[in-house]
Amino acid sequence: MTLSETPVHDPLDELLARREPGRSLEAAFYTSPDIFDVDVRRIFAQHWIFVGTAAEVREPGDFFTVTVGPWSVIVLRDDDEQVRALHNVCRHRGARVLTEERGSVGNIVCGYHRWTYATDGSLLHAESQPPGFDPSCFGLKQVHVRNVAGLIFICLAQEPPADLEEVANVVTPYLAPHQLERTKVAAQIDIVEQGNWKLVMENNRECYHCDGHPELIASLFPLFGYTEEDITPRLRPVLERYERAKSDLHDTCRARQVPIEVREELDTRATGFRVERMPLDLAGESYSADGSRLCQKLLGDFTTARFGDLSLHMQPNSWFHFLADHAVTFSVIPVAPGETLLRTTWLVHEDAVEGTDYDVDSLTAVWRATNAQDSALVARTQAGVSSPAYVGGPYSPTENQVEAFVSWYLTRLRQTTA
Amino acid sequence: MTLSETPVHDPLDELLARREPGRSLEAAFYTSPDIFDVDVRRIFAQHWIFVGTAAEVREPGDFFTVTVGPWSVIVLRDDDEQVRALHNVCRHRGARVLTEERGSVGNIVCGYHRWTYATDGSLLHAESQPPGFDPSCFGLKQVHVRNVAGLIFICLAQEPPADLEEVANVVTPYLAPHQLERTKVAAQIDIVEQGNWKLVMENNRECYHCDGHPELIASLFPLFGYTEEDITPRLRPVLERYERAKSDLHDTCRARQVPIEVREELDTRATGFRVERMPLDLAGESYSADGSRLCQKLLGDFTTARFGDLSLHMQPNSWFHFLADHAVTFSVIPVAPGETLLRTTWLVHEDAVEGTDYDVDSLTAVWRATNAQDSALVARTQAGVSSPAYVGGPYSPTENQVEAFVSWYLTRLRQTTA
Amino acid sequence: MTLSETPVHDPLDELLARREPGRSLEAAFYTSPDIFDVDVRRIFAQHWIFVGTAAEVREPGDFFTVTVGPWSVIVLRDDDEQVRALHNVCRHRGARVLTEERGSVGNIVCGYHRWTYATDGSLLHAESQPPGFDPSCFGLKQVHVRNVAGLIFICLAQEPPADLEEVANVVTPYLAPHQLERTKVAAQIDIVEQGNWKLVMENNRECYHCDGHPELIASLFPLFGYTEEDITPRLRPVLERYERAKSDLHDTCRARQVPIEVREELDTRATGFRVERMPLDLAGESYSADGSRLCQKLLGDFTTARFGDLSLHMQPNSWFHFLADHAVTFSVIPVAPGETLLRTTWLVHEDAVEGTDYDVDSLTAVWRATNAQDSALVARTQAGVSSPAYVGGPYSPTENQVEAFVSWYLTRLRQTTA
Repeated sequence: MTLSETPVHDPLDELLARREPGRSLEAAFYTSPDIFDVDVRRIFAQHWIFVGTAAEVREPGDFFTVTVGPWSVIVLRDDDEQVRALHNVCRHRGARVLTEERGSVGNIVCGYHRWTYATDGSLLHAESQPPGFDPSCFGLKQVHVRNVAGLIFICLAQEPPADLEEVANVVTPYLAPHQLERTKVAAQIDIVEQGNWKLVMENNRECYHCDGHPELIASLFPLFGYTEEDITPRLRPVLERYERAKSDLHDTCRARQVPIEVREELDTRATGFRVERMPLDLAGESYSADGSRLCQKLLGDFTTARFGDLSLHMQPNSWFHFLADHAVTFSVIPVAPGETLLRTTWLVHEDAVEGTDYDVDSLTAVWRATNAQDSALVARTQAGVSSPAYVGGPYSPTENQVEAFVSWYLTRLRQTTA
Repeated sequence: MTLSETPVHDPLDELLARREPGRSLEAAFYTSPDIFDVDVRRIFAQHWIFVGTAAEVREPGDFFTVTVGPWSVIVLRDDDEQVRALHNVCRHRGARVLTEERGSVGNIVCGYHRWTYATDGSLLHAESQPPGFDPSCFGLKQVHVRNVAGLIFICLAQEPPADLEEVANVVTPYLAPHQLERTKVAAQIDIVEQGNWKLVMENNRECYHCDGHPELIASLFPLFGYTEEDITPRLRPVLERYERAKSDLHDTCRARQVPIEVREELDTRATGFRVERMPLDLAGESYSADGSRLCQKLLGDFTTARFGDLSLHMQPNSWFHFLADHAVTFSVIPVAPGETLLRTTWLVHEDAVEGTDYDVDSLTAVWRATNAQDSALVARTQAGVSSPAYVGGPYSPTENQVEAFVSWYLTRLRQTTA
Repeated sequence: MTLSETPVHDPLDELLARREPGRSLEAAFYTSPDIFDVDVRRIFAQHWIFVGTAAEVREPGDFFTVTVGPWSVIVLRDDDEQVRALHNVCRHRGARVLTEERGSVGNIVCGYHRWTYATDGSLLHAESQPPGFDPSCFGLKQVHVRNVAGLIFICLAQEPPADLEEVANVVTPYLAPHQLERTKVAAQIDIVEQGNWKLVMENNRECYHCDGHPELIASLFPLFGYTEEDITPRLRPVLERYERAKSDLHDTCRARQVPIEVREELDTRATGFRVERMPLDLAGESYSADGSRLCQKLLGDFTTARFGDLSLHMQPNSWFHFLADHAVTFSVIPVAPGETLLRTTWLVHEDAVEGTDYDVDSLTAVWRATNAQDSALVARTQAGVSSPAYVGGPYSPTENQVEAFVSWYLTRLRQTTA
């Protein structure tokens, strides 16, 4: 095993046993090809992962393909209008059935020998077969899929974690008013970050580094990591502005019977999550330089754009921001020990008109900038932890959600097997 | 070992033991670096492999170099006009002696310290050597080579399979009238396919997918995979046209005492092969849109161009089409588990004049298109079988030569050792 | 393990045990990822390696970063004007602290969460820490560093080889008159050679191949590898010219009390070295087509440019040429089994004016050409030894320093442990 890959490391159980709570993980978790393998097989193949939105498969036959480790999965809307997931592997000689990233089909036809499958995966036709060939034995294999208020999750395991139902029941009332089933994709951007997938998640789970995100923090209240006693005279008015915005948001939500209390179960269940609706600063409507809306046509049947930012964090691979005027989804997919795909999708109301109601550049500006900044931070961390001189350092109190993610991750490794 | 490489797999002997005849191989055979290693060492290093044609080394000193796995071999015409193969490794400090892909030399001089070898490999001169230095101990190492009617085969083993002689005796009468020793290279194109070498071979061994080759099938009779009972009224005239062309071809061959019966020993010997001369449709002369010749100057001393297509398949790494007006050779070399070099060479009569007798673009059009189409099919299959969801599927009766190739391959693995 | 990586090889101790003195190493030493790993951990991480010159960090806060295997090290001039080396790994979550290759800083600030270190590595400030956080526990880790007459060596081991002091005492009188502390970098060029680091070193340690370096040998006496009895009538005048130049150089050195005798301890100590001052041919001043100076402003307080070429060879990774008008340093860093970074740096007097005293293209011409030629030779050797047909060949008497390097390397492997 070469240095260009990873330093020798102790067996996983020893690494798990000696982990110090409150400190960043040992290097092997970020650099070892073996642990990358474990992560894909135990975390990504045995948990519910977010792969896309219902808005990407609006009509029967609409599909997109997603690659998770060595798996390729077709996510499509079948002829019964249900979202389905199928293994993208022909039952003849294993060719990838659909090679496009997205599109729309009547039947699913393999490009090699024209084996033809229905949108439910059943084999409809295969040429030149001998007598006794039974098509019902050769349908495309099914993948577990769940559509949670317009968010599509798949699970590659035979028996997915059972708790997604509970989580769906908790978060659906928060998501419902944004009516994601009535949105369309305004933009979708993939970037490949030069770091382990966990560094990408850890980076998302704290705002300790948010000074590096000028565009993002413009519409956020500058109070991160402050406790009551930190509030200086300079910050007093900010705090009061925040308290006002918060109570306004509470009133608005109460009026619409939309839940607003924080629900956090990040590391206490298989499908860890955290949901919170926070007020925004300035105009208080959206992620823009002055906080004003980025899409004139609001989501669902919102009558006010001052609905704050509904932030949803899910383990292992996603986070979301739902605003009154648009929504942004983030999906993290491991590619290699030091390489991770981040897919960002911007959703607007299905009737919003580009150029009239919204401008794609303005809509995506803040998160394009923020993703680029985070990508650089992830790359420098991957490079740094690869040094034998690296030792785990202490998380500050403001990095509590990083600790929660790491703790969820380690718990799941302990509770699953390859 | 990471997923970016390959999934864990059982030991080779278990994989060999549980193979189901009639079904495509398990994924490990296409994706495992270990099995790739086995393939190179047991299949490519211990069998006769096709590497080029006599037409590429026509004069003494003419050479080309070929890379097979970690080996580099010089194939050249020595000063006694014999085709020779030498390991391309200097006996001083191991430098690659010749770095060019092809050329012509008087002596073979290493570019590092000027050690100088004769075309038979013997060391002629090495500077600054101490007394007692014995040049006869430091000649370039020899590689077994055999020139079969103008086709050059090498074997890297100490003891090559003995049966090439028999095979040469069988196929030479079929090849003789095309007189390859009197041809020249009109074009040679290398493409690197994104798939395991066996997928490249399997793809070549069936026409079940030939609907994907419109250019290729133009001059072929559209009867693949049909049995007597499949013949519809629509196909009846095609069948009659085929029978006529076939009996004409038989007459032509009989008149010239050229054998025409199919000889097939694909999986019953170390040097598996299959030879068949088939009539072509339309003008019946060559691989062109209307079946007419692509080179006015015919090979050998052919007086008619309606000599059909002499198709030769050899295990493990080649296939050939010999027509009256030109010949095409195909050599397959593994590069990595998911990467394979396909070298295609077009030969015409040594006296044919480019621009007058033939046009390179037209001559190569059909197989350039066909190779590109097959390359895409191989890549989608490599991608597909890499999924843990892949399981071997059934070959249709028309894929019998694929089964023969796979069966030859597995038999050879069982009968050889690393 | 795949062929694209390396052939299987015997355990290191067996390889060490059966090495034949006077012959080039077995392939595994050049191609095996395991042995590459051993080389980095035992040779590069446990010996003094040359990484740069004092001229690259002239002012407090000036730094450059160097990557050695998985380590990244900051070399900088601290506020006390001492050259320091620090591990480039933040003590918080391991981010690479400085991502630039070189620059100048006041304090060392990590770009992720703004942890701030002094130039001596101590942690000055970390935000949002809980009570009880002790900054003194989180300084950047120190790396051993030694400035030898302006040449910077680092050692990543806890306990570096003790003999650098002795070596420094021996070579400093040779280097002193060139006053490297009063030079500046005129040019620095990195090239990545496609060969193992040992092939790069071996290539440097003999002139048996110097016919391939027309630019380099222009100013060298053409007597390599010749013994007294080889001297032909044609060479007689050359020899006489050489003897004259040599005695002139002796006089010059004696007059300035500069040592001139060869000191060679290449394979008898941890920090192997060889130092020799040789006369140059033609104008005898520098590495140019006619041997005349390439920089009008001479180094130190030289009054004559005819001071020959002070050649310093050090194990494991450097060589140097110090002339009266400029100096050239060479640092070799392994990147992968078949990939090596060669950094070449040209130094001139700190007061020399580009365009007036020297022209960068002319100054660097000879070694740019020589490096390119050697790089091609190294690549063809890496390719060649990767063949299973390769066996170690005999070194000629003129390759004695290659044998010395190989013998030093094997001795160090025997005397160190991972």
